[in-house]
Amino acid sequence: MFFLIGLGLGDAKDITVKGLEIVKKCSRVYLEAYTSVLTIGKEALEEFYGRELIVADRDCVEQDADSILAEAAETDVAMLVVGDPFGATTHTDLVLRAQQKGIPYQVVHNASIMNAIGCCGLQLYSFGETVSIPYWTDSWQPESFYDKIAGNRARGLHTLCLLDIKVKEPTLESMTKKKKEYMPPRFMSVSEASHQLLQILEKKRSGGEGSLAFTEKTLCVGLARVGSPEQKLHAASLTEMSNTDLGLPLHSLIIAGQLQPLEVEYLEQFLSKSYSLEEHAFS
Amino acid sequence: MFFLIGLGLGDAKDITVKGLEIVKKCSRVYLEAYTSVLTIGKEALEEFYGRELIVADRDCVEQDADSILAEAAETDVAMLVVGDPFGATTHTDLVLRAQQKGIPYQVVHNASIMNAIGCCGLQLYSFGETVSIPYWTDSWQPESFYDKIAGNRARGLHTLCLLDIKVKEPTLESMTKKKKEYMPPRFMSVSEASHQLLQILEKKRSGGEGSLAFTEKTLCVGLARVGSPEQKLHAASLTEMSNTDLGLPLHSLIIAGQLQPLEVEYLEQFLSKSYSLEEHAFS
Repeated sequence: MFFLIGLGLGDAKDITVKGLEIVKKCSRVYLEAYTSVLTIGKEALEEFYGRELIVADRDCVEQDADSILAEAAETDVAMLVVGDPFGATTHTDLVLRAQQKGIPYQVVHNASIMNAIGCCGLQLYSFGETVSIPYWTDSWQPESFYDKIAGNRARGLHTLCLLDIKVKEPTLESMTKKKKEYMPPRFMSVSEASHQLLQILEKKRSGGEGSLAFTEKTLCVGLARVGSPEQKLHAASLTEMSNTDLGLPLHSLIIAGQLQPLEVEYLEQFLSKSYSLEEHAFS
Repeated sequence: MFFLIGLGLGDAKDITVKGLEIVKKCSRVYLEAYTSVLTIGKEALEEFYGRELIVADRDCVEQDADSILAEAAETDVAMLVVGDPFGATTHTDLVLRAQQKGIPYQVVHNASIMNAIGCCGLQLYSFGETVSIPYWTDSWQPESFYDKIAGNRARGLHTLCLLDIKVKEPTLESMTKKKKEYMPPRFMSVSEASHQLLQILEKKRSGGEGSLAFTEKTLCVGLARVGSPEQKLHAASLTEMSNTDLGLPLHSLIIAGQLQPLEVEYLEQFLSKSYSLEEHAFS
């Protein structure tokens, strides 16, 4: 049997009772370690589970999927995933392959950033399409997420921006070499994401675009380490957000749409003192 | 301390290890029982937790919130919620009140239908705004969700439709009486929801509306008891869905938007034999 188990977002104890029972009985347990991270490391998980984990990086999951599944045809194998198992395409693909090979599988759901962002008081049914903001390079500065944010804002909806994660990325120089060298892991902060969004506004303005989807003053919510005891939320203008340090990863950013009274009341808890909600100027 | 604890979607063992530890140590534990249900009842939960639970219906949560929170100022009190705590406005309101009274609170996240629908293989980042489909009455047949589905479809996005739940609703006759009488609980099925959607199409056509957001042939995914061992998924045309019985509650319905190859491949697992994906006619 192949088990795909969500770990939730915080620490070791965010696994479900069902998930923990499965982890304890499996022959082999993999820990997927490149689409997201918890606030604790592999060692803390191993101590809590009382067993060894095998770290599965991108190469392992994408290239050795067949061998992982081959084991699962003979014995019980689990893959642990931060958040919910269906948060990333990779995991959907893994379940599909198991199904195609006739290997029975079971999925154990958990919280993911897609529903846990409700913790900022913005209502989940008022969110539009989720976007991903990738790290820009000198030669690659995609803006496609801007149009999606614009589409959401036009309908009064909030936008959850998932921020880029670079884990075990080979350096450009070693791409063609036999022995790959890896860059240190990087996790985009709300400050970095806000900087990129401000740059897009500048480009649009200098390109003569009149009506922008949001402005420097639009209300944003920065979220760090959601679901953990070290969770931190901050609501402020996009400009202020670009100068806000929310500490260790993971971060997420919300561009607010039209606000309901209950949402406003809730946001007051962590709203920047220098921000007046009248500036949100939703139109 | 006030704890708001998500129970996930399936059975007793879908609570997190963190959540279970809190349930065991609290003086009083309430079970919120009107915004959603698990596949098991209060007694099964009590047996698993080894403690008594107090059922909190709508009246209790909305009218006695102050007394629940007053207890929480003196001792540890938990409110258990099916899914994730921030899935319903009521719970956001409860946390806000605790915060305003200076009562410390902690939220324990879990899976909710908002992220667990990923189990059908449609990617979460391809969903637009979520809609709610209410039970129609003879005199009240709102259609506002149609425009939201249309907005999503126009952008190629899928729509999750949350289906109405009527638990402990007073009968019309007893509304003005001292002693309220309650209707039996009702949970909208995918079949009932599809019927209402088909009726909207008929009305739009007879009203002369030319371009419809979806048709009788549009691909829908019906989901029942997501996250439980009795989970059932079925993908078919809207017309077929209106004649499909997925059994016991809870049900949810997805109106598909533009499909990616991986999504199509995944859907094949539970796609109706009489449906050809060419009929989905996304345009």
